[in-house]
Amino acid sequence: MAMMNALHKDLVKDPDDTELRCIVLSAEGKIWSAGHNLKELQANDSAYRNEVFQKITDIILDIQKLPVPVISKVNGMAAAAGCQLVASCDIIVASDKSTFSTPGASVGVFCNTPGVAIGRVMSRPKSAYMLMTGLPITSQEAYVAGLVTKVVAEKDLDHTIDEITRAIKSKSRAVISLGKQFYYEQLNLPLKDAYKCGQSKMMENLELDDCKEGLTSFIEKRHPVWKHKA
Amino acid sequence: MAMMNALHKDLVKDPDDTELRCIVLSAEGKIWSAGHNLKELQANDSAYRNEVFQKITDIILDIQKLPVPVISKVNGMAAAAGCQLVASCDIIVASDKSTFSTPGASVGVFCNTPGVAIGRVMSRPKSAYMLMTGLPITSQEAYVAGLVTKVVAEKDLDHTIDEITRAIKSKSRAVISLGKQFYYEQLNLPLKDAYKCGQSKMMENLELDDCKEGLTSFIEKRHPVWKHKA
Amino acid sequence: MAMMNALHKDLVKDPDDTELRCIVLSAEGKIWSAGHNLKELQANDSAYRNEVFQKITDIILDIQKLPVPVISKVNGMAAAAGCQLVASCDIIVASDKSTFSTPGASVGVFCNTPGVAIGRVMSRPKSAYMLMTGLPITSQEAYVAGLVTKVVAEKDLDHTIDEITRAIKSKSRAVISLGKQFYYEQLNLPLKDAYKCGQSKMMENLELDDCKEGLTSFIEKRHPVWKHKA
Repeated sequence: MAMMNALHKDLVKDPDDTELRCIVLSAEGKIWSAGHNLKELQANDSAYRNEVFQKITDIILDIQKLPVPVISKVNGMAAAAGCQLVASCDIIVASDKSTFSTPGASVGVFCNTPGVAIGRVMSRPKSAYMLMTGLPITSQEAYVAGLVTKVVAEKDLDHTIDEITRAIKSKSRAVISLGKQFYYEQLNLPLKDAYKCGQSKMMENLELDDCKEGLTSFIEKRHPVWKHKA
Repeated sequence: MAMMNALHKDLVKDPDDTELRCIVLSAEGKIWSAGHNLKELQANDSAYRNEVFQKITDIILDIQKLPVPVISKVNGMAAAAGCQLVASCDIIVASDKSTFSTPGASVGVFCNTPGVAIGRVMSRPKSAYMLMTGLPITSQEAYVAGLVTKVVAEKDLDHTIDEITRAIKSKSRAVISLGKQFYYEQLNLPLKDAYKCGQSKMMENLELDDCKEGLTSFIEKRHPVWKHKA
Repeated sequence: MAMMNALHKDLVKDPDDTELRCIVLSAEGKIWSAGHNLKELQANDSAYRNEVFQKITDIILDIQKLPVPVISKVNGMAAAAGCQLVASCDIIVASDKSTFSTPGASVGVFCNTPGVAIGRVMSRPKSAYMLMTGLPITSQEAYVAGLVTKVVAEKDLDHTIDEITRAIKSKSRAVISLGKQFYYEQLNLPLKDAYKCGQSKMMENLELDDCKEGLTSFIEKRHPVWKHKA
């Protein structure tokens, strides 16, 4: 719980700081943990247990609400709530030696909440396999299934993350923030409503100072100078 | 119709038998059929036709309701309602020589109901292609598109199925059953509701005797002894 | 705007013409454009801008409503609204040298509406990557992610398109039309409702003259002679 609290606090520390342009989550060592502890789950009462699951939900919902992209960097094993956390980031990059699994049922706790995350990025026959068998899948399988954005050799992992963060940092924070917020909003809408809403969002985007600067600099064939503020 | 009735009866025979831990569906021979018969569809009246389509729907909805995982093993051709049935199982394993198609439009019957199944596991451009052209796709294409969990050489098919069923059988039936039921429930919910519901489901899971045994055996570093009962 | 108007007019010119059996969209040259023009967006007032986004939405919604399959053929670069238009066709075929991107944020305009299209065919971690970084993906990546139906060598592109259009043209237009309409309808329904609706659609399909001809010709082992009319 201490670890989840620390992670949550760091994630939402200062979302309006314009110096903050993207967040990269990674594990210390080879095992990606979200902070769940089976001993704690076994020993403690139901109020405590509920708090554990509420905390990881809060973290995940806040990742979507953050005004900057959140990237997970996986180089090892992402299991159970660790896999859920990885799958809940905007962008996921994994080394080719990494594995992903939801093995909770092996100790009697079905990965119900991790299934909410992986069931939304992978096809049903693949996520059901992970949940019901508990068997791990490789990075390459995770890539094909849609869980992972990119798989690279371990030695190229940092370089790939750099490339992604550089691309994000070269853009206006205000524009990315507006876009990220709408992206998640529209995914839950029927197609026609999503487009209607998207058109309003485009009008809103075109009124941003950084959009005016972007279009002007494009036409004037120079680099834009962003304010990063809405 | 006789074949569909037999299949349905076998599937739901005794769902509460704790000896039943998973179900593997496979074809006799190389062609996977769900029992639809074009001659019957042509010859018979609309009440009969309606019964045919109601029956396959009942089978498919019952596959999701079953308390144990249902695996389809494909080694040959899965076409039309056969492809629909395959795609409606929890886990799908295919040999590398298998093909998948929804060619109904070639004989004037668009694969409307098979499209419900494949449109939910594959991306739109791929399932629309299958439905509108009737052309078959390979196992490898089906794997990339998300229709198939795993593709293996024909000689490894039984071994792979064994590995999956062993993994399922090593777990508590009560835990898998609770998890499978929630997995399908949450897929239809918005993210926030899915997590809210998932937290309750976790609390319910932690109260199962087999969960208490699972956590205790994990901490005591011994194999769990499951009761398999809720 | 002139280009979008011309495209829209051509698309919906005569949807009931039974000679029209499918539509192939492709770019002149190597860049796929939907007709958006950054200079126009910068220079013009908000009524005009709104018209631009309304027009592309109308085109896309009409592609789904058309009674015949719409195929996009990509041989080069599909970016921003061009990528949106490509992703909104029923079937997408790309040469192996093609790329796909949604780089709008680089000039201050987040690809909000293209995100509606690509977010519905690709997994979230892949479409979020495209939208937030603006970086291009290859045909092969687009294929794995579900954006593209088939990737082929440039020299095989026309042949592949021919194979697809021949398969469509060998079928009854009335059957394909009924099937396409239901396919998009059911994707928005919960599973149970989709099947209920699918059964009614099957009954409707079986009453079509071309369905009766299809089943009869199948049983008589001869080629069907379609009327193509509902």
